[in-house]
Amino acid sequence: MSQQPSSEIIHQSRDVAAIDLGSNSFHMVVAKVVDQDLQLVSRHKQRVRLADGLDDHKNLDHASMERGLECLAMFAERLKGFEPSNVRIAATHTLRQASNTHLFIERAKEVLPYPIEVIPGEEEARLIYLGVAHTQIESETKLVIDIGGGSTEMIIGNGFEAKLLNSKQMGCVSYNNAYFSNGKLSKKNFAKASLAAQQRLESISSKYRKHGWDIALGSSGTVKAIREVLIGLGYDDGRITLKRLDKLIETLCQWNHIDEIELTGLTPERKPVFAAGVAILHAIVKDLKIDTLHFSEAALREGLLYEMEDRFKRSDIRMRTTENLANIHRVDLEHAESVSQTALYLLNQVDEELGIAKKTELVDLLQWAALLHEVGLSISLQAFHRHSAYILRHTNMAGFNQEQQQVLSTLVRFQRKALKLHEMEPFTLFKRKHILTLIRILRLAIVLNGQRNDEPVPKLSISIDKDCWTLSCMDQNWLEDNKLLHADLLTEQAYWKNAEWDLLLEPIDSEE
Amino acid sequence: MSQQPSSEIIHQSRDVAAIDLGSNSFHMVVAKVVDQDLQLVSRHKQRVRLADGLDDHKNLDHASMERGLECLAMFAERLKGFEPSNVRIAATHTLRQASNTHLFIERAKEVLPYPIEVIPGEEEARLIYLGVAHTQIESETKLVIDIGGGSTEMIIGNGFEAKLLNSKQMGCVSYNNAYFSNGKLSKKNFAKASLAAQQRLESISSKYRKHGWDIALGSSGTVKAIREVLIGLGYDDGRITLKRLDKLIETLCQWNHIDEIELTGLTPERKPVFAAGVAILHAIVKDLKIDTLHFSEAALREGLLYEMEDRFKRSDIRMRTTENLANIHRVDLEHAESVSQTALYLLNQVDEELGIAKKTELVDLLQWAALLHEVGLSISLQAFHRHSAYILRHTNMAGFNQEQQQVLSTLVRFQRKALKLHEMEPFTLFKRKHILTLIRILRLAIVLNGQRNDEPVPKLSISIDKDCWTLSCMDQNWLEDNKLLHADLLTEQAYWKNAEWDLLLEPIDSEE
Repeated sequence: MSQQPSSEIIHQSRDVAAIDLGSNSFHMVVAKVVDQDLQLVSRHKQRVRLADGLDDHKNLDHASMERGLECLAMFAERLKGFEPSNVRIAATHTLRQASNTHLFIERAKEVLPYPIEVIPGEEEARLIYLGVAHTQIESETKLVIDIGGGSTEMIIGNGFEAKLLNSKQMGCVSYNNAYFSNGKLSKKNFAKASLAAQQRLESISSKYRKHGWDIALGSSGTVKAIREVLIGLGYDDGRITLKRLDKLIETLCQWNHIDEIELTGLTPERKPVFAAGVAILHAIVKDLKIDTLHFSEAALREGLLYEMEDRFKRSDIRMRTTENLANIHRVDLEHAESVSQTALYLLNQVDEELGIAKKTELVDLLQWAALLHEVGLSISLQAFHRHSAYILRHTNMAGFNQEQQQVLSTLVRFQRKALKLHEMEPFTLFKRKHILTLIRILRLAIVLNGQRNDEPVPKLSISIDKDCWTLSCMDQNWLEDNKLLHADLLTEQAYWKNAEWDLLLEPIDSEE
Repeated sequence: MSQQPSSEIIHQSRDVAAIDLGSNSFHMVVAKVVDQDLQLVSRHKQRVRLADGLDDHKNLDHASMERGLECLAMFAERLKGFEPSNVRIAATHTLRQASNTHLFIERAKEVLPYPIEVIPGEEEARLIYLGVAHTQIESETKLVIDIGGGSTEMIIGNGFEAKLLNSKQMGCVSYNNAYFSNGKLSKKNFAKASLAAQQRLESISSKYRKHGWDIALGSSGTVKAIREVLIGLGYDDGRITLKRLDKLIETLCQWNHIDEIELTGLTPERKPVFAAGVAILHAIVKDLKIDTLHFSEAALREGLLYEMEDRFKRSDIRMRTTENLANIHRVDLEHAESVSQTALYLLNQVDEELGIAKKTELVDLLQWAALLHEVGLSISLQAFHRHSAYILRHTNMAGFNQEQQQVLSTLVRFQRKALKLHEMEPFTLFKRKHILTLIRILRLAIVLNGQRNDEPVPKLSISIDKDCWTLSCMDQNWLEDNKLLHADLLTEQAYWKNAEWDLLLEPIDSEE
């Protein structure tokens, strides 16, 4: 995430790739960016069945990890020579769920040297929509359905913007295990699976129906397979309707067992989870009252690609997300801006020394954290840093992956009061020492703006010697002239001391 | 809380009492309600120094508990024959802080048979304001400062409504321990204490100054003592100004040690914490730029009394709080109302059997929980019951004491999904079995309204046999006609089963 494309190649043709680590299959698409447009070069797919490897304690077993790593090693060959900024990898439901995802990601780093982002369900939904929207008429309102192995995303949007988005924990792999584990194709099994799906949809379907859409599109392997099978059954236009799904279920029930199914268009790979996928889609088409569903080849991976094509777009989305959140929680934006500017001013003095390159992800995250550090005040002044952390951890934040949200949440958590650093969770994409640096920068920026008045913050210099930071000022009397700031810095010094960091103020307070 | 005054005495004169369990002193006021007006009958005060009894682990020691219980026993004598609905007891900072408060409250029940409410700091601030406001000109904007033993409340309000309110953890007992523990009266000690107080004020003072006020009032023992001492020094009008406080500090520094202070108007009881109180008030008057501060006899206990005088007023405040919170978090009020009505409809069938009297606190709390059960959706759909619980636990909710907020938070926490009842914390004012009952009622009301459409919820009957609840309907076909509801109830049944509760549906599903 942190590298930038070198400027000399940004306007030439360049190859980009997106990988989607799904619960059923891993997909990769490679494309060429020519004059701001994307030309697809190749698609790769491997059925890894990651979801099958989750045990009762949500641990991914050895075999499924190996299958995944083998696939990634294969993708890695294709990606030799790709710049890190030209590859984006997103992991979805199973890796969201697994309790040992960090192990998988650690091992994946060894075979595929690009960061893997675990993205929240709503973020997955947004990216799927984006991928589909790029292939459709912009002005039409679109309903997009993506039935994965472990989760199903449902989005209504207009242009490139998702208006309603949800990710539900139902997928063709998990529903196959729950409702067709005996392999039996009976009306009863279909009815049970379909009813369970309807229960999942209950909380959102009336909202979706009320909103409405011009065109409904399905974007997953499940939808693709159903389309192929319908064509095989003689429905040449490949459109999916409730009637045709009813008919399809009837057809499927002619066989006793899933293994026996023989349908034109159904691949052997898809067969084991086909019935579950049909049941889920049946529930959705029925519940949302979808007239006709069309198939869209584009999906999550294309969403990832299109965001890479113009990297600033993602940054825009995150800026918009940040501003929205600040508005919802009625953040004092003037104060937040001051803190953000002070933080940047401090960081710019020491970024090279600390190994934090300018204009990278980390710098962006510091500034967003500064803008959002007080969102928790909307809950209560007392311990508001904890409320801010809670909100930034759990809110659906468009454009952010899980670990980026974790960085924001961690920075605001440790913005003030005692540095209980043992509460800090491990990171996989970022280095802990960088996060600790950003915490120090943010805290200092907050202390320096503590009095919330219009008087300018003293222009301070930072110098660093290992874990000892020194603050000094051109104006030798800065501490005497700012007694309250001085007191606040001494309080801060004591907090640092307890975390075994040193903070020195120059000139040294003669009274101490 | 749960008893109502019998209707025949509500319009006659009745005696009411309010007790305030402060960090330094316990206070009691008794008043007579005559024609909607309050006539104070007596005031009682005992210096209990609860705050002194907190050890490093925030445990109240034996001696301070005994001092507190002795005082409550004394108050109990005065209250013999008072109806529970005519006594209100609020505990503040030290009992908010102590980790063994529940032990104190358990033991207090034995000597004083009225419920003790631990109130949050902001709630204390609101009640102080209310107490002061009742003795002042309604149209003037008031700034009220109350310096207690462990916390200081600062409120700006108009009429009877607080507009800005804060409770800060600084008080004359804690500041005495921190800055005058050696008993030395020096300019340096005063400056340190005053600066520490200014640090506390930093985050709010500019907001207060910008808001402004017509009259500034101080309502605590500290302010009263300062006023008396100033009068003793010749300032006959007893007004408190920054100049006079500067002068007072100068005067105090003429003695070396706190024990040596000899000032007209200063009681021996107040002497030990007087200097710390002066330092805190000095910081406040300076920082908020208060021109003149007047003393108000009325404070927290009067606030409690005035709310009792017209009990519905408190209920009004809580209704307003609930509605505000629902608005802020953009709750679907139509749906919430339906859930609330269904909950009440179900409860009314079984309330007597369960020992929950109609029109009591618990019924109110159930309805507010129903109105607010979806506030957490403002954070995220996923696990929103946990977000709702977090918000209701930590938001400053005017009119609610800590335990009432805990009830709301608990009800919404367990509104859906697995009943992990081991996560439920103990209650002191309410019975666990009643809370468990309300959880069942709320869950059923939510399931019955699950489809969020306009079709009426089937009118169901509940019957109860110990932990087994049975739902039945006049319409024998209700389960077949509502397949999705049936499926939801079966899911709910499974959750209950895991908590060792039984839920039966009649007629019994023949398929099972």
